Amino acid sequence: MNWQTEAGGKLVLRVAGRTLFEHAPDAPAVFVGHGVETIDMYRGNFDISDYVEERVALRDARLTLQADGSARIELARDAQAAAELTIVASESAHGAQLALSASGAEINRVWWRVPAQRDEHVWGCGEQMSYFDLRGRNFPLWTSEPGVGRDKSTHLTWQADTTSKSGGDYYNTNYPQPTFVSSQKYCLHAETTAYADFDFRHDERHELQFWAVPERIELIVADDFITLVERISQRFGRQPALPAWVMDGAILGLKNGRDHAQTIMEQSRAAGLKVSGLWCEDWVGIRQTSFGKRLFWDWRWNETRYPGHAEWVKQLNADGVRFLGYVNPYLCNDGTLYVEAKQAGYLATRADGSDYLVDFGEFDCGVVDFTNPAAARWFEERVIRDEMLNKGLDGWMADFGEYLPTDVTLANGIDAKLMHNAWPTLWAQVNARAIEGAGRTGDAVFFMRAGYTGVQAHCPLLWAGDQSVDFTRHDGLQTVICGALSSGLLGNAYHHSDIGGYTSLFGNTRTPELFQRWAEMAAFTPMMRTHEGNRPDSNFQFWQDAGVLAHFARMTRVFVALKPYVQGLVDEAAARGLPLQRPLFLHYEHDRATYAIQDHYLYGRDLLVAPVHAAGAMQWRVYLPQGDAWTHLWSGTRYEGGQHVDVAAPPGEPPVFVRHGAAREAQLLKLAQDAA
Amino acid sequence: MNWQTEAGGKLVLRVAGRTLFEHAPDAPAVFVGHGVETIDMYRGNFDISDYVEERVALRDARLTLQADGSARIELARDAQAAAELTIVASESAHGAQLALSASGAEINRVWWRVPAQRDEHVWGCGEQMSYFDLRGRNFPLWTSEPGVGRDKSTHLTWQADTTSKSGGDYYNTNYPQPTFVSSQKYCLHAETTAYADFDFRHDERHELQFWAVPERIELIVADDFITLVERISQRFGRQPALPAWVMDGAILGLKNGRDHAQTIMEQSRAAGLKVSGLWCEDWVGIRQTSFGKRLFWDWRWNETRYPGHAEWVKQLNADGVRFLGYVNPYLCNDGTLYVEAKQAGYLATRADGSDYLVDFGEFDCGVVDFTNPAAARWFEERVIRDEMLNKGLDGWMADFGEYLPTDVTLANGIDAKLMHNAWPTLWAQVNARAIEGAGRTGDAVFFMRAGYTGVQAHCPLLWAGDQSVDFTRHDGLQTVICGALSSGLLGNAYHHSDIGGYTSLFGNTRTPELFQRWAEMAAFTPMMRTHEGNRPDSNFQFWQDAGVLAHFARMTRVFVALKPYVQGLVDEAAARGLPLQRPLFLHYEHDRATYAIQDHYLYGRDLLVAPVHAAGAMQWRVYLPQGDAWTHLWSGTRYEGGQHVDVAAPPGEPPVFVRHGAAREAQLLKLAQDAA
Repeated sequence: MNWQTEAGGKLVLRVAGRTLFEHAPDAPAVFVGHGVETIDMYRGNFDISDYVEERVALRDARLTLQADGSARIELARDAQAAAELTIVASESAHGAQLALSASGAEINRVWWRVPAQRDEHVWGCGEQMSYFDLRGRNFPLWTSEPGVGRDKSTHLTWQADTTSKSGGDYYNTNYPQPTFVSSQKYCLHAETTAYADFDFRHDERHELQFWAVPERIELIVADDFITLVERISQRFGRQPALPAWVMDGAILGLKNGRDHAQTIMEQSRAAGLKVSGLWCEDWVGIRQTSFGKRLFWDWRWNETRYPGHAEWVKQLNADGVRFLGYVNPYLCNDGTLYVEAKQAGYLATRADGSDYLVDFGEFDCGVVDFTNPAAARWFEERVIRDEMLNKGLDGWMADFGEYLPTDVTLANGIDAKLMHNAWPTLWAQVNARAIEGAGRTGDAVFFMRAGYTGVQAHCPLLWAGDQSVDFTRHDGLQTVICGALSSGLLGNAYHHSDIGGYTSLFGNTRTPELFQRWAEMAAFTPMMRTHEGNRPDSNFQFWQDAGVLAHFARMTRVFVALKPYVQGLVDEAAARGLPLQRPLFLHYEHDRATYAIQDHYLYGRDLLVAPVHAAGAMQWRVYLPQGDAWTHLWSGTRYEGGQHVDVAAPPGEPPVFVRHGAAREAQLLKLAQDAA
Repeated sequence: MNWQTEAGGKLVLRVAGRTLFEHAPDAPAVFVGHGVETIDMYRGNFDISDYVEERVALRDARLTLQADGSARIELARDAQAAAELTIVASESAHGAQLALSASGAEINRVWWRVPAQRDEHVWGCGEQMSYFDLRGRNFPLWTSEPGVGRDKSTHLTWQADTTSKSGGDYYNTNYPQPTFVSSQKYCLHAETTAYADFDFRHDERHELQFWAVPERIELIVADDFITLVERISQRFGRQPALPAWVMDGAILGLKNGRDHAQTIMEQSRAAGLKVSGLWCEDWVGIRQTSFGKRLFWDWRWNETRYPGHAEWVKQLNADGVRFLGYVNPYLCNDGTLYVEAKQAGYLATRADGSDYLVDFGEFDCGVVDFTNPAAARWFEERVIRDEMLNKGLDGWMADFGEYLPTDVTLANGIDAKLMHNAWPTLWAQVNARAIEGAGRTGDAVFFMRAGYTGVQAHCPLLWAGDQSVDFTRHDGLQTVICGALSSGLLGNAYHHSDIGGYTSLFGNTRTPELFQRWAEMAAFTPMMRTHEGNRPDSNFQFWQDAGVLAHFARMTRVFVALKPYVQGLVDEAAARGLPLQRPLFLHYEHDRATYAIQDHYLYGRDLLVAPVHAAGAMQWRVYLPQGDAWTHLWSGTRYEGGQHVDVAAPPGEPPVFVRHGAAREAQLLKLAQDAA
């Protein structure tokens, strides 16, 4: 950390040669002010606007180097004015951290400029689904529904917008995080849970906007990207290892009761499918609404739908099949757990102390107040341990986390507007502690779509949320890759998605081809899991076509054959925090052509995967990074890196390349045979 | 004008009892700052965004009362800081005016707060098409295309947006003006041509945003609305009287050459239609593009399309029929006038002096630079006088005025961003001076859709722009009424529209019923004029159905029968500036139920018109203002005011009521017979 004052009131911070703060009276780095926001939520979709009453440039910076090596910078509007913001900057293990404090309580907006380079690339900001390279756009950071269509130019998005405000846009994500990685090989993290908007549209600067004074701006640097990602993972916490059983086959998402699950499993196995688990969301039973079938949000087995479940699950387990369920942080007010929680005072309330119920579409729910330690413990023990882990569940989707209303009153007394983004991590903590309390860490597993800073330390596995059942640019198959790469850089090693997508609305339905392409990609992710989707009856299901079933079986064999390789990646993730799915530049930083690629990934160091994400494609164009030679898995053809190649890509032969010289090269090249 | 300082640094301006400026250190009235705007134009549709770098509250106000009775207020951020904005306030004939000046050239944003009352209504802001009462919304003020659909929830709007960025929104208008009228009986006008945004969303204040320091804020007050409107008209200039011949029948919009015009006219007259003029846009000839037929923008008769036009127009005139054409301020670069203008140096240029051509869709045009007095004179004399007035045109549509690109270089050296809004008034001036120069004021007529402050003094007649050929809330028939009422309050006495609407896109086509309802309304406006629309061949035309033709003929008879009454309104407009179409509250200010009505109007003092603006309606609900009794024109039933009444409203019987006690009551009640 090196602070330098220059002529004309200029002040510059350099960290290991990078200029990361640059202030001058005519080009100030920091602006403060006051805004009045409007935040409206409709079922997880937010309409957010700001009325900025004041935004003041802090043109005068007064630097004091302190005895302990830290620097104190007082920022004021001009030399005559009192300081409005104070920065105390100190060295950290791999960079610097800048603690911020404002002099007036009325300051609730901060704009922070970071010097940028014209050709700089920027990645991260949580799990971004549309753009991996964030340059050229701004990214509001607020956990929410991701949107249906996510592209204002499509008819699907328009229909979603006009019927339910749910169309979304490129930046909507379940998992935002005020953290980015720059191609200058530094990471900037802002420690705050307030609404933020990171603006990468300017050539000479990034501008970070916060709706509260952030506690800290943290800067982490490294000499190479791999080390940088290791340090980032260290900062946010290492994930528990993925259970080995997950790698033994696909997890079948089935939600029509015990008989259905049993039948499809048998039929699938008969077709050669490797199965490691059944995931039955409807273990809690269902509720009929005018929208369709919904789950019954009272987190206990439903005996009618799953008669004799205890025995049945034992049989499944004996047969090498795990059982997974579903849970979320809400309790429906016509369920039994709601009554327990309400009586104990564990539910969030209105300002006047009365019940706060959230409308989920013809049913209402209470919000368990995880800021109350007793309520969180109750959910961990009474719900997750007693009703789930102790009753045969080895895993579950831990859904939601994005819906905390901003006008709810919480036990910790903090404004819900500040707790909204914090909620996913609290929710992950509840799940992780329940598993830990039961001594099941590394064996039981849950997967989340919601996230925020710190979720890394608790959530063992992300799932990419609710894609539309299509190949569209902003809501289809390819967005899953973008989500994996962006979240992976920030210390989320494990990522997967619903095979075949989830959202089928306005006549948009899943094709067999989409399912196949998605399964091909999923074989090269840490979990293969299907989903019947939001409208099972009107969408293609894998068991409805023998050809698709055979293709899917083939892909599960590839997946299982990869286990030794993936186990190595799991060990690496535990030791170093490296994600399983990696952007090409992570290992090829000298090749700038890789910096903006968001539809290929390295699966570990040695496999390059370029999933087909278009209908009707029988060929696929792939960029192979410079510096290595790559063998095409299915043809055995070896190509030099540093070029685009066109390869045949019929269903069943996803574009995958093995790095020449890889430790397990022979084993990986054998995958084509394993598949057969 | 009464300035008052109160305890705690409070400063208040009262004008005739109204608090119109209120400042306190913790609730400042004025904010100044700096912004960097982005303005992109695509064929008259603008994408405008602002990056506000600074917005500073001016919390310290220092008042000095000066010897000449004026007050000088210096506004600064705090007591220690230098003044950033100075207001010099002085009395005016009917209120006050506040001249503004900033101390620093970098100030290019001003936010000005006006104290508001919770139940206050606000109208004006030019010609507003969606909302007459502006309260509850903000209104960007920038002349542009009005939009197609203008409602983000409709499929039509979405299609227009995604195919040509032309969907628009509720605030898009050809004619904005930074002037509003409050139910507190004052008018606030801001003298500036900069982009502005008037925000009426707050309960306790209005906030006016300007992208330059306005020269002045003008305040006009009166004890009643009628007097207020008179004073507003006085401020912006009185319009020339509408030519009497306009009231002699409908003007038929026909654009397929001489034979077509002659034939339809004869056929119409044979059906009993009263015709006062032919309006043939295509007098200049056409150009075939992939979009369809466009006019040839070289403002001279086309001999091929109108062979023997000189003789023909003489015959028409002898027959009591005037001829009207079309012109706009552009010159196509494959025309002869373009060459003349370019050689004389009359065209606006790029910054480097090279040609600036605007793309209008497969043809390019030069912009005549009206800031160059010689260029304006050339257009007046060489184009309008020589090619139009002297060659048989007694009127024309003076189209456009909204398209001045913001990056063009002009002769007067002023930034085109500041001239953009000024352009419609310059364009009106050119037309008005040409007519004046030819001694034809009050006889020749032109009509415009574009407008801005000052257009009142020059443009004799507004037309409501390009509605869609439908009954939609934000782009159909009813929006014309809103446009007439809002512009009328600001001194535009004359307003009319394309009968049957204009824009037919994406399969939206005109029905016979729409034409009929529109004609019914048009009979109660100062000009009845049809338009074949943008796609004549695929839309209903009045001569295609005998029943519609008979209905239209009936409406022209009503229109002609109204001439004596309307002539009285024209005289009133000349003398007092009162609009012909008036909001109900103008004469019934004690009845607050009238304040938000935007689909009825008073036509003069004595007729209440409530056009049917829905398909399939055979009844219509009408509010009759309190204090008078009203006779339904077609049934003769008399109703007391102060209530809603439901009346029969079959085609041919538009809901019209005659005020009991009107000077011409008997004559007006006879209209039903005149129609027969």
